Amino acid sequence: MDVRQYVVEKAKLAQKAARQLAAASTDVKNAALLAMAEALQQRSDEILRANAQDMEAGRQKGLSQALLDRLLLTEKRIADMAEGLRQVAALPDPVGEVVKMWTRPNGLQIGQMRVPLGVVGIIYEARPNVTVDAAALCLKTGNAVLLRGGSEAIHSNTAIARIISRAAREVGLPEGAIQLIEITGREAVNVMLRLNGYLDVLIPRGGAGLIRTVVENASVPVIETGVGNCHVYVDAEADLAMAEEIVINAKTQRPAVCNAMETLLVHREVAAEFLPGLAERLTELGVELRGCPVTRSLVPGIQPATEDDWATEFLDLILAIRVVDSLDEALEHIYLYGTKHSEAIVTSNYFTARRFLQEVDAAAVYVNASTRFTDGFQFGFGAEIGISTQKLHARGPMGLTELTTIKYIVYGEGQIRE
Amino acid sequence: MDVRQYVVEKAKLAQKAARQLAAASTDVKNAALLAMAEALQQRSDEILRANAQDMEAGRQKGLSQALLDRLLLTEKRIADMAEGLRQVAALPDPVGEVVKMWTRPNGLQIGQMRVPLGVVGIIYEARPNVTVDAAALCLKTGNAVLLRGGSEAIHSNTAIARIISRAAREVGLPEGAIQLIEITGREAVNVMLRLNGYLDVLIPRGGAGLIRTVVENASVPVIETGVGNCHVYVDAEADLAMAEEIVINAKTQRPAVCNAMETLLVHREVAAEFLPGLAERLTELGVELRGCPVTRSLVPGIQPATEDDWATEFLDLILAIRVVDSLDEALEHIYLYGTKHSEAIVTSNYFTARRFLQEVDAAAVYVNASTRFTDGFQFGFGAEIGISTQKLHARGPMGLTELTTIKYIVYGEGQIRE
Repeated sequence: MDVRQYVVEKAKLAQKAARQLAAASTDVKNAALLAMAEALQQRSDEILRANAQDMEAGRQKGLSQALLDRLLLTEKRIADMAEGLRQVAALPDPVGEVVKMWTRPNGLQIGQMRVPLGVVGIIYEARPNVTVDAAALCLKTGNAVLLRGGSEAIHSNTAIARIISRAAREVGLPEGAIQLIEITGREAVNVMLRLNGYLDVLIPRGGAGLIRTVVENASVPVIETGVGNCHVYVDAEADLAMAEEIVINAKTQRPAVCNAMETLLVHREVAAEFLPGLAERLTELGVELRGCPVTRSLVPGIQPATEDDWATEFLDLILAIRVVDSLDEALEHIYLYGTKHSEAIVTSNYFTARRFLQEVDAAAVYVNASTRFTDGFQFGFGAEIGISTQKLHARGPMGLTELTTIKYIVYGEGQIRE
Repeated sequence: MDVRQYVVEKAKLAQKAARQLAAASTDVKNAALLAMAEALQQRSDEILRANAQDMEAGRQKGLSQALLDRLLLTEKRIADMAEGLRQVAALPDPVGEVVKMWTRPNGLQIGQMRVPLGVVGIIYEARPNVTVDAAALCLKTGNAVLLRGGSEAIHSNTAIARIISRAAREVGLPEGAIQLIEITGREAVNVMLRLNGYLDVLIPRGGAGLIRTVVENASVPVIETGVGNCHVYVDAEADLAMAEEIVINAKTQRPAVCNAMETLLVHREVAAEFLPGLAERLTELGVELRGCPVTRSLVPGIQPATEDDWATEFLDLILAIRVVDSLDEALEHIYLYGTKHSEAIVTSNYFTARRFLQEVDAAAVYVNASTRFTDGFQFGFGAEIGISTQKLHARGPMGLTELTTIKYIVYGEGQIRE
């Protein structure tokens, strides 16, 4: 098969669908989302059979238990995907919103109207639920979507994509609105990366390697998601009981995600009071601690933290701890090692809180709360397509609004330019 | 010289400056802009001497008269650049604006605050005034800027950049806030294109070739500017006197710019009444007409329009004309050949106007006005860094706001995630 031609044909179909989708009413789009939910549950047998093929192949390939867990689908997980579709249907549709409108001295009335991006490409890894989530968010915002999932999930993804795509067509949405690249291999990705003129944006979702590959090789505009080397800084004037709960939450509530804390910074004045008790609780929770020399003098027996540790997103029950002399030293550490994702301070001092909020450059900056809230649902967006770690277009959790662009609509009565 | 090392050193300096600039007050930034204006005028002799070198080299290289005109600086043009700086100083500063803020059920208060992008790279061609304009807009928005102008203007750009950079430093802005690549040759551009981690965005300003090169080869996020194959559609229910003024304005007021009209679409019902008189006026104004068969039957003696003509941005006194049978045919033509820049309809029919506004996918869609208004000043933004023809981050004229991103600021009282 000519892979390039295969991908381009899909992209052309998506582009054609995008033009119709842009004009689709919210009612029709919601009906499609509900029909997709219904179809997923009615045809769960098909999905589970396809998933069993992927699981078997995964076991034979020797995938890790963690990867197999991500790959696995159950009736419950399919019901969750369907529920996700119903939640997206219930969200407000941003398309058509006139964000603002003003009148120029010459009488021209100019407005910014939200419109779909067009065709969104999503390149993702093992979890088959991304197929449903991404399709739902794109469809709700009037975008066509070209999906390329991981080869481990190819059977599951193909079954899911065919079912939801057919359900969407049956309520009147165009063929091509939701499409999956149904072949495996790197070549299809390479073609997608350079499909300018067909794809309006690419969103990679997955590990650091995937994201790096996409960013470095795409000529299509990319929204970078993912990497989070996040910090909590416990200030000299922190409420230490509050700090302990925030630190434990930020590290252990779900350590494998990008908004989990990786390094704890503690002001020297409170280190002796704060660290030993905290270390005991963290150790009980299975967290491996790595400390700077001062930390190690206060918490005997833990490993030294290396330069690499400060720069590492562990995504695991590992925590690096550093005692700092001042807010400035904490800010400097975050500037040097942070990835501009989520950063938190625990302090009771108004001026310290204000400086931290102003001076830390990150997608989300917290005062007295856990970094774990950087998430579309937690922010109140209802759903998210990912968390942007770049500064263009979208930063932080991306909800439906971030899947739209604007166009200027201009009403005149014959105005010409002098 | 090691070009890569040279560019990276500049980028590092810019990054350091960006951190300080992000915290600079509007007062300080405005003082710098005014000092830059003052310095340009006080040291105009230096600039004119450097420009004379560029002009001489340009003549020897056989640059066209048009290019030499763009390159030329005069006392008047320097005064205009200084005036531009004063205008940017007078604009409101978007940095620090909290776009919105809301409170979650758990009490977390979440706000979106406008912050600078960081380091902006601008790659541009002949006009030395871009050096001043781009530096001013970036500085006002708290961004450091790394400029790379065309080799033809290297002496002019170097003189200008040194003067404004020194003026900015003298009022307390960091070294590195405004920097120019002072060497010529493609290699520096190639390095800039892949400076992820140093540059937050690249904005190419210039011809189609430059923009294509940047889009295809950059791994740094790019904002694409420029190409405009714009249409005016004169509907069956148009006010034909209004249509004639709009068409003449859109084609002839400044034909070399991206928002000028390149193809005129006319509904068959009014073509016989509209086209002959219009053609006469356009011909008198020096416009070369190229028509479809129906147009040629109504306006004898003009060249046939080819498939290529429909797809061409002439940037010149050339107009392609096509008679269409319906709004749908006009929409289809625009969809096929347009570049999603600026599109206009002339009509007195409410429903036709509404369909055109909804269905045309372009940065700016006009009803009863000239396409020539797609411009930062005309839209009321006060100044522009370019006109984005992509959908991510910015679309249409980019003012100060488009040179910022947001960060989420989150106020808590110890909230942790369940």
